[in-house]
This record gives sequence, structure tokens and C-alpha cells, in this order.
Amino acid sequence: MSASVVLQQAREFAAAELVGRQALLDSFADAPLPLYRSFADLGLANWWLPADVGGLAIGLEGSVGVVSELSYGDAGAAFTLFLSVLGTTIVDLYGSPELRKRYLAPLAADGGFCATLGSEHEAGSELTRMSTSAARHGDDIVLNGEKSFSTNVAFADFLVVVAKSADAPGEHVAVVVDRDTPGVQVVKRWEMLGLRSSATYQVRFADCRVPAANLLAGPGIRLLEVALNASRTLIATTAVGVARRIRDLCMDYAETKTVQGAPLVGHPVFGGKLGQIEMQIEVMANQCAAAGRRFDQIMAGPAAADEFLRHGTLRAALAAKMFCGQAGWEIAGVGSEMFGGFGYTRESDIGKLLRDMRYVSLVEGGDDVTRDLIFNRYVIPVMKRV
Amino acid sequence: MSASVVLQQAREFAAAELVGRQALLDSFADAPLPLYRSFADLGLANWWLPADVGGLAIGLEGSVGVVSELSYGDAGAAFTLFLSVLGTTIVDLYGSPELRKRYLAPLAADGGFCATLGSEHEAGSELTRMSTSAARHGDDIVLNGEKSFSTNVAFADFLVVVAKSADAPGEHVAVVVDRDTPGVQVVKRWEMLGLRSSATYQVRFADCRVPAANLLAGPGIRLLEVALNASRTLIATTAVGVARRIRDLCMDYAETKTVQGAPLVGHPVFGGKLGQIEMQIEVMANQCAAAGRRFDQIMAGPAAADEFLRHGTLRAALAAKMFCGQAGWEIAGVGSEMFGGFGYTRESDIGKLLRDMRYVSLVEGGDDVTRDLIFNRYVIPVMKRV
Amino acid sequence: MSASVVLQQAREFAAAELVGRQALLDSFADAPLPLYRSFADLGLANWWLPADVGGLAIGLEGSVGVVSELSYGDAGAAFTLFLSVLGTTIVDLYGSPELRKRYLAPLAADGGFCATLGSEHEAGSELTRMSTSAARHGDDIVLNGEKSFSTNVAFADFLVVVAKSADAPGEHVAVVVDRDTPGVQVVKRWEMLGLRSSATYQVRFADCRVPAANLLAGPGIRLLEVALNASRTLIATTAVGVARRIRDLCMDYAETKTVQGAPLVGHPVFGGKLGQIEMQIEVMANQCAAAGRRFDQIMAGPAAADEFLRHGTLRAALAAKMFCGQAGWEIAGVGSEMFGGFGYTRESDIGKLLRDMRYVSLVEGGDDVTRDLIFNRYVIPVMKRV
Amino acid sequence: MSASVVLQQAREFAAAELVGRQALLDSFADAPLPLYRSFADLGLANWWLPADVGGLAIGLEGSVGVVSELSYGDAGAAFTLFLSVLGTTIVDLYGSPELRKRYLAPLAADGGFCATLGSEHEAGSELTRMSTSAARHGDDIVLNGEKSFSTNVAFADFLVVVAKSADAPGEHVAVVVDRDTPGVQVVKRWEMLGLRSSATYQVRFADCRVPAANLLAGPGIRLLEVALNASRTLIATTAVGVARRIRDLCMDYAETKTVQGAPLVGHPVFGGKLGQIEMQIEVMANQCAAAGRRFDQIMAGPAAADEFLRHGTLRAALAAKMFCGQAGWEIAGVGSEMFGGFGYTRESDIGKLLRDMRYVSLVEGGDDVTRDLIFNRYVIPVMKRV
Repeated sequence: MSASVVLQQAREFAAAELVGRQALLDSFADAPLPLYRSFADLGLANWWLPADVGGLAIGLEGSVGVVSELSYGDAGAAFTLFLSVLGTTIVDLYGSPELRKRYLAPLAADGGFCATLGSEHEAGSELTRMSTSAARHGDDIVLNGEKSFSTNVAFADFLVVVAKSADAPGEHVAVVVDRDTPGVQVVKRWEMLGLRSSATYQVRFADCRVPAANLLAGPGIRLLEVALNASRTLIATTAVGVARRIRDLCMDYAETKTVQGAPLVGHPVFGGKLGQIEMQIEVMANQCAAAGRRFDQIMAGPAAADEFLRHGTLRAALAAKMFCGQAGWEIAGVGSEMFGGFGYTRESDIGKLLRDMRYVSLVEGGDDVTRDLIFNRYVIPVMKRV
Repeated sequence: MSASVVLQQAREFAAAELVGRQALLDSFADAPLPLYRSFADLGLANWWLPADVGGLAIGLEGSVGVVSELSYGDAGAAFTLFLSVLGTTIVDLYGSPELRKRYLAPLAADGGFCATLGSEHEAGSELTRMSTSAARHGDDIVLNGEKSFSTNVAFADFLVVVAKSADAPGEHVAVVVDRDTPGVQVVKRWEMLGLRSSATYQVRFADCRVPAANLLAGPGIRLLEVALNASRTLIATTAVGVARRIRDLCMDYAETKTVQGAPLVGHPVFGGKLGQIEMQIEVMANQCAAAGRRFDQIMAGPAAADEFLRHGTLRAALAAKMFCGQAGWEIAGVGSEMFGGFGYTRESDIGKLLRDMRYVSLVEGGDDVTRDLIFNRYVIPVMKRV
Repeated sequence: MSASVVLQQAREFAAAELVGRQALLDSFADAPLPLYRSFADLGLANWWLPADVGGLAIGLEGSVGVVSELSYGDAGAAFTLFLSVLGTTIVDLYGSPELRKRYLAPLAADGGFCATLGSEHEAGSELTRMSTSAARHGDDIVLNGEKSFSTNVAFADFLVVVAKSADAPGEHVAVVVDRDTPGVQVVKRWEMLGLRSSATYQVRFADCRVPAANLLAGPGIRLLEVALNASRTLIATTAVGVARRIRDLCMDYAETKTVQGAPLVGHPVFGGKLGQIEMQIEVMANQCAAAGRRFDQIMAGPAAADEFLRHGTLRAALAAKMFCGQAGWEIAGVGSEMFGGFGYTRESDIGKLLRDMRYVSLVEGGDDVTRDLIFNRYVIPVMKRV
Repeated sequence: MSASVVLQQAREFAAAELVGRQALLDSFADAPLPLYRSFADLGLANWWLPADVGGLAIGLEGSVGVVSELSYGDAGAAFTLFLSVLGTTIVDLYGSPELRKRYLAPLAADGGFCATLGSEHEAGSELTRMSTSAARHGDDIVLNGEKSFSTNVAFADFLVVVAKSADAPGEHVAVVVDRDTPGVQVVKRWEMLGLRSSATYQVRFADCRVPAANLLAGPGIRLLEVALNASRTLIATTAVGVARRIRDLCMDYAETKTVQGAPLVGHPVFGGKLGQIEMQIEVMANQCAAAGRRFDQIMAGPAAADEFLRHGTLRAALAAKMFCGQAGWEIAGVGSEMFGGFGYTRESDIGKLLRDMRYVSLVEGGDDVTRDLIFNRYVIPVMKRV
């Protein structure tokens, strides 16, 4: 399937399966797995996986289009469907050929999920303070500790776990863990303010033993940082989809609502607000596309894995997440004032969209964290400034 | 009870009955009437009622303090407990001595609620477009029509209904209706995004017949406008209470959370955010107090009812609601980014506070409406500019 | 003269002498001393001075009204005319009876100015880092060092200088210095972006010798902090005056300008902007008044000097300066977009108003400084939170 | 010269001739023509002109890079040097081969300027209300009327004038006019708040007669609209250059300034602000590049002139100008608070950068105008929404 076909299919999937199903998607019942199964049945699951493992090889710039369409339908569904990119990018770039084949090929062929476990409650955004440990015991790695906010774990096929090395103080590893490995315990599912069709868990590792061959090549936290470029770009993109949905919700409303005897859609104050929103959507979309292009450009190089290690977190991906979180929140705020008192009721979709939008600035590094990263990595070094 | 005693009791009530009971207050179960009963048992219910009907006679400036304390505990509870002010102000100023005694004295003596029914779905904020009608039949008034967003109706003792006159085109009346009058039908309770301990209803009047003596003296929409000065000021004040709660939640968190090896509370970026929030709280509180003082000043005059009719909506009350809605939303946005991913879960209170805060800008006139009012009433007439 | 007469006279002075004289007031020629002389000739100069030295005894709340009127005319003129309050407040509260009489009485009787010298270039807002020193030599104090940003110095009658004690490390003194004392050297006048009718200087003290009796009672930096409550409140108030002027400039323009065949003043987007501005002006004015009331309340106490020392910087004054600086800047930004390309030319007054407005956030502590102060003084101590 | 060589030369020109010459560039003396001559001597003048008339053929995306460098040096110089693009684009797309050769080739060979005259004082942004008229007299066109805000006119080689047709009511023409044609009168130069090294004039046409062959093919206002895509994109880009300059000014300052005993550059609040600014610069630059790419893409098509007529104003160009104006103003506001009181003096460059930045939102359509355009052209038609 070409990128444009995938994009078109994603749009149709969103229109058919997501739009209009707020009640289900916002219910926080069991994660709507049948829905995700039907996405896989279209052959779309994990659309970014490389061709050599059987994937559709849609690059990150192309993925931006796909995720904008999915999140137009439902941000939680989009998040669920793209977040495996975090773990698969690590395995793709830093896994042995054997690991790549064993773990990525099934995800390309049958759908399914991988979950990536980095953050911990105490450590917050300071990953170096994590306490989950990986200790070498003969040919095995033994994991112990607890991870917070691990999305998709319950129904994932495999996990990518970042842990501190019990053997080399100050170092961290990343390792692939089959989901059904003994010692992997789901402690609870977190109930979230929004994104309620997605499922995020607290997970415990209790003497969880995996073969040392499952280790990924490179310092664990840096590998995670590399892959966060992809997921942060796509998280940013969900703000584009939600913003587009808010715009259309406002327009639909304004065509029927009258103010001072005329349709709201012709009122200059309304037009001005929508013009501002459309401008912001355009800018958000271009920034996400730019972040995608930058990622794809490195990925296309002859030594992508090494070059990514040199770069670590990319300016464009950080900027995309920060900017889309901020502009998206502004749009959601304006949108939530557009429907009067009705907009405060559950009968309007705007409340869900507002709650969904909030996550963009909160996950994978809040703005204080990303501001620091941009400052330290891209302003302090004079040569790296734009 | 003096104003300072009432204030102190409200503070204690909030601490004992509201703070820490988010699960109940956010559940959207039946409105927590026992809670409101216990407030009445303290003798605090409807604290603003005038002394001559047995009330505590706390003015609007004093009420600002009380509502700040109550909404620190829970904005929905505060809203429920103060919103009767809308109807009682109309009855107090424009009701006959008999009506004042019959309806206000019990509310002062035993607690209880009154609901005011103005807005309708189709009309939105354009009250003159309302379709609920009041027709004179002999000595009775017969009401027909449907009202949206009527808070406290289900358990109110009486209603103040604004309707268009079936007999005098272009005119409106306000009339007191006993809650148990035949033909008053609660259609449904609206499920809201926040403020979930309060209860707002869709209400239908089907040939609902009340004595003409229940009419209030004056043009119905103008009477409502007068009384909205009180409720808008107190709605604005809930933003102060919620903002104070957010501040304290942030401070509690920052005292235990560490960043880069030191407590978050000592981090300059955190301190700067809290300094900004505290500044905003101070300004919000002063604006609410100013609006209260202005209202009390007119109320203290010898011909308060007439002077209020001349003024209609007051600049200070409009400004209070607009400003507190805007500043409050800004604070809630900043607050909701303070707790990282944890702040997106239901285990943090911040999500509820964010949802609660949203209502300030949405009820009793959105900002587009209040901006127009301020512009037309207080900028266009040169002499009224500050 | 009563407060209301002073207010009325200030309004007339602004209308007659300031409004419409932008060319002069923005020219950065010599400070327009004849203008300030004519203000004194009306008997208005230094209107806040206490009655016992012959002043008009207008409190700080009353001064807020006066400064709003003066800065409606010209912010630089207002700044020049009120800034002596900084030094006179120190002398009034912490000067000996003899000093109060010698220095304050002439200012009340004849007009004239006092300048207060605290900030230094290196130290910035960290006053404890100042290097200007005061050394005891027999019955004299000898001052050495250099002060930045000292307004009114060139034409002041006396100076209040804060300096580190050469004799007691870590301590600071405040001392009154006659302007014509040998060793007081004006190094240069700073050319400013706005406020160009005011005059701010770099000043050097070279073995400048004053009698020890000129020392004020108390720790120098704390005395300054106390008096900054008055000047910060009035600086905040200039934002109110400038904002009111911007509003009127916009309204005048909108009455003649047509858009789509109708006067701009009737365009809803314009009305919405002006409604927002008017709301902000109302809130700013109330916050300044609240800061004034708080100051006056302490001043009216039996031990005002001591109580002020205990309080130091007041929450309300800090909040006034921060808020008015921020809201004022927002208003100036909106205003500067209102006139199209014409607003970018010197033929429109809006550019001057924008430049004038900027100073509110920049002088006597930028927002980072005041945020820290509010946080450390009024958030960290739980009992001091509102 | 390749695009990268032009970029490099522009950077060197800015470093050598613009940076550090604020006194000259901000003086509003005669437009610094020798400076612009030296730019032409490098062979860089009018770098965007097509190859067939001897130009360097740098597309609009490439021009974004060039203008970012020039405006880093001085926004007024950048504006002067790129604004000819407005007229040359019209001549390039809609001029006869003869006109293209006669007018564009000299600008490519020798440098020089063209000015475009659209806006008029009364009409403001409503171009259809313009009163300057073009009447057919035999083989000539006779122009009469007055144009406001015409940049570069005094020293331009030729003008592109948009006028209403005296012969066909409701229609407009665009026509090339040699600068030295009798009847072209410069009324005055406007003094501007910023951009003071550029020169903008009021121009009168008094029976100004040009050959009808100088008419450009197509409706005059639409031709202007097409070309505004280029100039608006580059105006937006000046905000990028000025923002980069502000960032570097802040960083230079923060490396020497100490706060609480440590360099400001290490203070987290400072780092957070700079991180936010850098994010915004990245997003601004990407949006300008996207607008440039979109323009270049249409220009590369086989029927560019027609396709541009169909599109008229492009979403990306409108969004670039709006967004960069808004984000740039935010950055300038933050920047202007970074230097304390010193930043309010003329000894700091920040005041000039603030004044320069302001123009982005004010010229070639304020935000109310561009919001309306985006809304009406790209939101109302459902198929055109992103």
C-alpha cells in the first residue's frame, strides 16, 4: 500500500469507526480491542514498520498524515495505534537481525502491539533516577522494579524495557521482553482524564527473566531518547487531528445556531476565531511534517542508528510536541467557549476533545522538560542555533 | 451571626465536608443533599437573606469571602449553595411584602433552595428570544414552555420564572412558582463536564397555573439582569476558590516531589509560576470584592430597587466574571501541567479542578456576550467610561 | 484641597497641558520643567505629603486617581510628578522630626522634587549587591559610588541615597543628601524608549559628605522596600491611565473609520476588543485602589513605621505592578494593531503609548523579581496565602 | 550563484554591514542607499529574479533563508531589499515578454528597486475602495490619485500601480510606470516607529501618462493578491531574523550578567524562556519555508500564472504572516523584559528590535484582515480545510 492509500484508508477508518462513537470511546470500559482488530484487518496496523520485515514502510512524515486522520476520529485510538512506534523504532535500529525478525515481522503481518516502559513514578521525567534494574545472571537478564504510565502493556505482544544496569553503575540497558514472560505483572490500569479509549498501566517486574540476546545495542536511555523523536512527533500530531475536529464541530454548530437573527457562521467574531484556529492548524501541521521529514532524513542515511545516537533528541520533534501542545490547548480553550452552556454538558463532544487535547503537553515530557532540552541542546551550543 | 463568624464557619464546613471528598463530589450521583442539609443545620443556608425576613444579612462583598471558602472545598457545592441568590434577590427587590415574607422567610429559617429559570436552548444568551410564555387567565398566570440549564430545580422550594408575556408583545414578566405546582415537569438532569455535585435541569411548564399575585414588579428580563449582578459576582468568586485550591495542591506536591535532587518547591521555575498564580488570585479576589461592594452600595440606598433598574448590569460584576473566568482558566491550565503524567490521571485532583474551573466562563453569559455588554453599556456612552 | 478637588484639578491639568502635546512630551529635549512648574503653581505638587508639614495629605488610594488622570495625559509627566513619593515616604516614616520639617515642608510649600537612589548597574535588582558605600567620618557620612537609573536627580532638591555601610558589613543605610552637596555628580541622562518627558540619570558620589544627622532610622534596604509600595502602586496606575488613553484613541478612530461601508465602531470584532480592554481597565484600577487602601490602612495605624518594617513589601502593591504591567502591555499590543499601517507611523499617538506602557514591567523590579517576592513572602508562608 | 552561496553571502553581508550599526540604521536619516548599493555590488540584488532575465532564480523557499539572515542584521534593510519582489512577481507572471525584458533585466543586472502601489489611506485594507484611477486616453493610460505607504518609491526604477479602471466600473488594472514619468510626485516620507532604515512614502499621481502597453494582463487587485504571497512570506520571515537576533542578544547578556552569584545563563527561568523562544523560532522558520515551498510549487507548474489566479491568496502565506507576527511579538515582549531597566534605554538594542518586530502584524493586512481571508477562503469551503 502506498502512503496515499494508507492515508485514505485511515481517513475512512476514522469516519466509519471513530467519528460518532464518543460514547464508547470515552467510556473507559475495556480498551476497545475489536476496534483495533478491525484496523489491523485492513492491513494498516503498525504502518511504519520497514519493508524488510514485511511492513508498509510509511515514513514519519507520512505517518503524520495518518495520525492526523486517526486522531480526528479519536485521539485515544490514534495513540493506541501509533505508540508501538516507540518500541519498534528501538528494535528496528538497535536490535540484532534476529530480534528484528522475531519481534517486528509478526507485528507487520498480524497487527499487535508493543509497549515501551521507561518512566517511573519517583523519577518523573528524570529517567536517570529510575530504579527498575536489570541484572546479568548467566545468559539471562533479570528485571526487578515498577514502571508507571506504560501504555498498551496488557495486550501487547512484547515490551521494550529500559532499566538501570545492576552490573555497571550509572549505565542503563534496553531489553525486549515477551509479554507473557513470568514476572511481568500488570498492577493496575490508570484512569485518565481523557484519551479514555487508550489503556495505560502500572507494571511490576518481579524477577522477570529474559535471554541476554534480547538486549538492544546501546545505552538504554539514549535509545529511548532516539525513539521518542517518533512518538513525540505523533503525539504532537494528535493535537492537529483534535484541532481539526474542534474546528469542524464549531462550523457545524455555527451553521445552525443563530445570533441576532443571522447564522453564527456569518458573525465576524466567530469568523475571526475560526480564522485564527485554521492558521494554527496549518502551522501545527507544518511543524509535525517538518519533524517527520527530519527524522526520515536521518533514517534514510547509511548509518542511521549511529547518527541518531549522535543527535539524540531532535529539535524539530521537541518543537512539534511543545508547540502543538500549546496551540492545541489554546484551540481547545476557545472551542470550549463556543457552545455556551451546552458546551459544558456531556451532550456536546467539546468536553471530550478538551480533555483529550490536554495529554499532548503532559506525556513524554512536559513543557518545562522540553524547554530545558531545547535550551541545553540547541541554544547553549552556538553552532546548533537556527 | 456576624460576617466573620459566617466566613469562619464556611471555612470549617469546607474543610470538614468538602476537601478530601472528591470521589463523592465528582461522581454525578444524586445531588449530595445531605451535605447541603448539614450546611443548613449550621444555620448558614442562604446567608445573604435580609434581616427583616430572618436572614443573616451578609452583603455581597461578605458573600465573596464565603463563596471563596466554599469553592475552595468544591465549586459545585458552592454553586448549589449560593445560586438561590439569583431568585431571592429578585423577590427581595421586586416582590410584594407578602411574597417576600412567604418565600424568603422559610429559606432563611429552614434552608432550602430557589431556582431561577431564564435561559432556553434556542434563545441562548439572547433572552428576548425566549419562547416560554405567561398568559393571564382571570386571576391566574398560565405558563407554557421549556427552560434549559435550570440549577437546583428538582429540590427547590420555589422557582422564579422569566417568561414572555402572552398579552403584551415584546414584554416579559417574572413570576414566583411553587415547586410543587402542577405542570412543573423536570425533563432531565444535564450531565456536566464539571461541577458534578451540582444539579442542573431541563424543565417544562405545561399549563402551569399560578396566582397573578405571584408576579414580580418590573420588566422580567431587566429584573433578571439586576439579580445576575449577584450571581455573576459569586460565580466569578468560585474561580478564586478553585484557584486557591490549585495553588495549595501544587505547593503540597512540590514539597515532596524532587527535581534534580532538590525539592520542586525550591525550583525557580516553579516559584515563578506560583508567584504569578498568587498575583492573579490577589487580583481576582479584589475584583470580586469590588463588584460586591458596588452591589452593596446600591442596595444600601434608599431606592435600591429603582436604582438597580436604572443600572441593569453592573460593570464591576461583568468584569469580575470575565476576568476570573479568564485568569482562572489560565491558572487551571498551568496547574494541570504541574503534575506530569500523574496530573492526567483521576488519582490527582487537578483534573476535577480544571473541569470545574471551565464553567466560570460558560454560564450566565460567555465572554463574547459580556464583552458586548461592557462595550455597549460602558464604552459607547463616553460618560460611563472609567 | 480635598481629594476630589485635587483629582479634578489633575484631570484639568492633563487635558490642558498634556493631551495633544505629544510632540513636546516625546521629544527627549530637556525635561519640560516649566510644565512641572505650572503643576506646582496649581498647588498640586507632591499632593501626598502629610498635613503636619503643610501637605494636602491625599492618601495612596486617592493618589491612584490622580495618577490615572495625569498618565492619561502623559505617563512621563505622571512619573516625574509622583516619583518623589519614594523618598518622601522614607523621610516621613523614618526621618527625625527635624529632617521631616527641613526636607518635606519646602516640597509641600513650593513644589520641587526629591530623588531616591537605590539601583546600580552591576547589582541590578539584587540591592544587597550594591557597591555605593557610606562611611562614618566623625559627625559626617561620606558617600562613594555610582547609581544607575535615578529619576529627577538633576533638578531635585534633595536625594535619598541607599548605600552599604562601610562600617558594618552586610548592613545598609539610607541618608538624605542635599542636591547641591559637593561630590554629587550627574554622569549622564539615559535616553529611554518611552517616558521621554521624564529624566533619569546616572549619578556618581565622589567623597560626598553629609551630616550623620541626615541618616534615616532603620536598615536602608528595608526602608526602600517599604517606600516602593507607594511608587510601585503608582507606576502600576500609570498603566491604567495609558490604557484609558488607548481606549479613547481607538474609539475616536473607530467613529470616523469605515469598514465594509459602516463605521468601525459598530463592527463586532472591534466591540469585542474594546469590551475586553474596558474589563481589563476596570480590574487594573480596582487592584491599584486595593493596593492604595492597604498602604493607607497601615499608614493610619498608631505605629505605622514599625508595622511597615514588619511587612516590607506588600502583596497588593506587588500584584498591582505585575498585573498592570502585563494587562497594560496586552492592551498596548492590541491597540497598536488597531490603526493598520497608520498606527506604525509617528503621526499616530499609539506608538508613543506603546513605548510608554513598556516601562511598567521594567522599572522597580521586573516580573521575575516580583514573582519571586510574592512567592517567597506570600506563598511559602502558609499563613500569608490569601 | 547557487542558493547556498547566496545564503552565505547574505549572512556575511549582514554580519559585516548591518550588525553593530544600529545607530545608523535606526536614525531615520536618508535611506542608507550606499548600503544597498554594496549589496548590489555583491551581485545579490533582487536574487529571486528568474534566470531568463538574468536573475539568480532563487525560489521563495530559498529566499526565506536569505531574508532570515538579512533581517538578523536589520529588518528595515531586509524589507528594503526584498520588497521589490512584490512588483517583479506581477511583471514576471503577468507582463508581456517585452515588459519582462525591459523592466526585470536591468534589476537583475544592476540592482535597483521597484515599488508597488496598492494601499490608500481611506480604503485601508479594502482595496476595492481605492480611488486612484486609470483612464484610457488613446494609446495611453492616465493615472490620477494618491497612494499611501509605498515603500522604496523615491529611489525605485519603476512602479507597479494598481488603480481602478475609469472605463470599466468595478474593475481594476495594474500598470508599470517608470519612476521618472511626469506626474509621479512624492508627497512625503512617513516616519515610522521602527524599520527606520527603510523608506515608505505618500505618492500622488497627477495626470500621469504611461503607454497602454505597460498594462499587466489580468484583474489588478487579483494580480496584487497573487504577488502578496511572496511579500507576506518574506515579511513573516523578517520576524524569524529579528527573533534570532533577540535570542542571541539575550544569550550574550546572560553570559556576563550574574544573578544570585551565578551567571544568568544557568538560571532555570532564563533557560525556560530561551527554550520557548527557540521552539517558536523553529516553528516560525518551518512555516515560512512551507509557504515558500507552496509558492515555488505553483510557480514550477506549466501554467503558473493561471494557477496563481485561481488560488489568489495562499493559506500558507497568510498563516506565515499571522503566525510570525504573533509569535514574533511575543518573543519581542519577553526579550524586552530580559534586560531590566537597561533594556528600556537606547543603549540596549532590544528597544529597536521590539519596534522593528511590530511591523510584521501591521503591514500588508493586519490580523483581523488575514483571519477573515483564511476563514472565508479556507474554512468556509469545506474541501479547502486542512
